[in-house]
Parts: sequence; structure tokens; C-alpha cells
Amino acid sequence: MSGLVRVITYGTFDLFHVGHLRILQRARGLGDELFVGISTDTFNSIKGKESTICFKHRMEIISALECVTHVFPEEGWDQKEKDIKRFQINKFVMGDDWKGKFDMLGSICDVLYLSRTPGISSSLLKAETPALKQRITGDGA
Amino acid sequence: MSGLVRVITYGTFDLFHVGHLRILQRARGLGDELFVGISTDTFNSIKGKESTICFKHRMEIISALECVTHVFPEEGWDQKEKDIKRFQINKFVMGDDWKGKFDMLGSICDVLYLSRTPGISSSLLKAETPALKQRITGDGA
Repeated sequence: MSGLVRVITYGTFDLFHVGHLRILQRARGLGDELFVGISTDTFNSIKGKESTICFKHRMEIISALECVTHVFPEEGWDQKEKDIKRFQINKFVMGDDWKGKFDMLGSICDVLYLSRTPGISSSLLKAETPALKQRITGDGA
Repeated sequence: MSGLVRVITYGTFDLFHVGHLRILQRARGLGDELFVGISTDTFNSIKGKESTICFKHRMEIISALECVTHVFPEEGWDQKEKDIKRFQINKFVMGDDWKGKFDMLGSICDVLYLSRTPGISSSLLKAETPALKQRITGDGA
């Protein structure tokens, strides 16, 4: 055990905006290291969602943030408990749109829900904007 | 003089994407410190442009990147020469969509134009998406 306080969170982080950033910065502020699970395109399709920005690019942006120390793919619903154990996580953090949904993880670590930034979301950015739903993949990826 | 190699670049960085990120990371790779001038909303309106994301939020995102060491507002066309002198800049870097446009600065520092990431741009994200042109300000800012 390293003695470091490790925080974990998850998301798609499509069309990266200040709401994403602030949740990540506040999550990092709760510990020494921040692990971020990023939903893969395949997992999103299982959820019936499609991001505008592809997984590779979303991962690249989250990795570039000073507040983020580790990124990894989120590939399924049942992965969180395993991640908390394999990364020796102390605090599990999500936006309060998920309030109550992950309370069962409270048996293995602290569970916190942070308030979201009002007035901005990926959904708002895409609302009534069909062209923004076209996929940006780039790099031939 | 500190002996550090200082790099400067400018942009609006609306709807932050991987094309922005890669230019900034490559610019930082050319030196020890990266200064980023971010166009204010007022300067953009002088240019006849309006960003979807307000200056305050654009500044917040660029400031959060590990590769960026300093951010400051870009408020007018004639500011670059003054910035290069006041920050003791060694290298001025822009995307190659500006190729040749800033060669006159070559008398006071190196001028480099970097290739852009194909297939992604703020303009592409906004193409034919009227709702995405609605301003996101948030915070009552």
C-alpha cells in the first residue's frame, strides 16, 4: 500500500467542456491520484449512445489534463468493483446525475456524488444539432 | 534571462478538440514553457467571429492542460510583437492555416507553422449546426 489517496471516476467526456473539467478537478482535489475510466465506443453502443468524438480522441484529451494521473477504458457495466480493487481506490466519485446509483460500492470504498456545472453538457451542445452527431474519428482510426 | 526556451501560440480554441491539443503539445515540445494567447470574445467580435464557448470557459480548459504553462488574453491584432518581447519568447508557433502570415515576427524570434490534424476543426464541428452556434456562457458570466 502506497499511502496515497486514490480517487476514481468514469464518463464518456464527449465534446469536452468546462463541466467535465470541473468535475475532474474537484475529484482530483479529494486525493493524490485520479483514475478516469473512459467509456469505449463499443460500451456506448451497448448503452444505446453514440458519441460525436471517438474513444481514441476522448482518451487523448482526458490524458492531457494536469489533474488526471491515470486513464483506462470502461468496457462494461460490471467493471467498477474490479477497478476499485485492482487500483486500490479509496474514493469513487460521480456527477450527481448518478446520485444513489452506485451506493452499493460503499462497502469497498467511499462513494461521493458531486454537483454538476449548470448550463453546460454534451447533450446541450448536441441538442437539435444533427450534424454534431456525425462521428469525428480522424487519423483513419 | 532564464535560459529556458519559451514558445508562444494563439487561438480561440472553441469546442476544444484533439486538433487543438496536438498543436499545443507539439508547440510545448519545441521548448520548456508554452505561453498561449486566447482570443477574447470582444476580439473575436472585432474579427466578425463568435465562439460557442465563452472566453472564460475556453481559458479555463487551456489552463488545465499539462503542456500549457501560461495563458493570457489576446485582445487585438497588434499585440503579438509586444507579447514576444514582454515574455522573452524564443519561438512563435501557429497552425499552417496561417502559413506566411506572421513571417514579419521573424526579426525578433523564430516563426514556425505546424501542420494541423486532418478531419477535425471547430468549424467542422459547427458546420450546418445552427444550435451549436448558440453561446454557452454558464456561471452567469
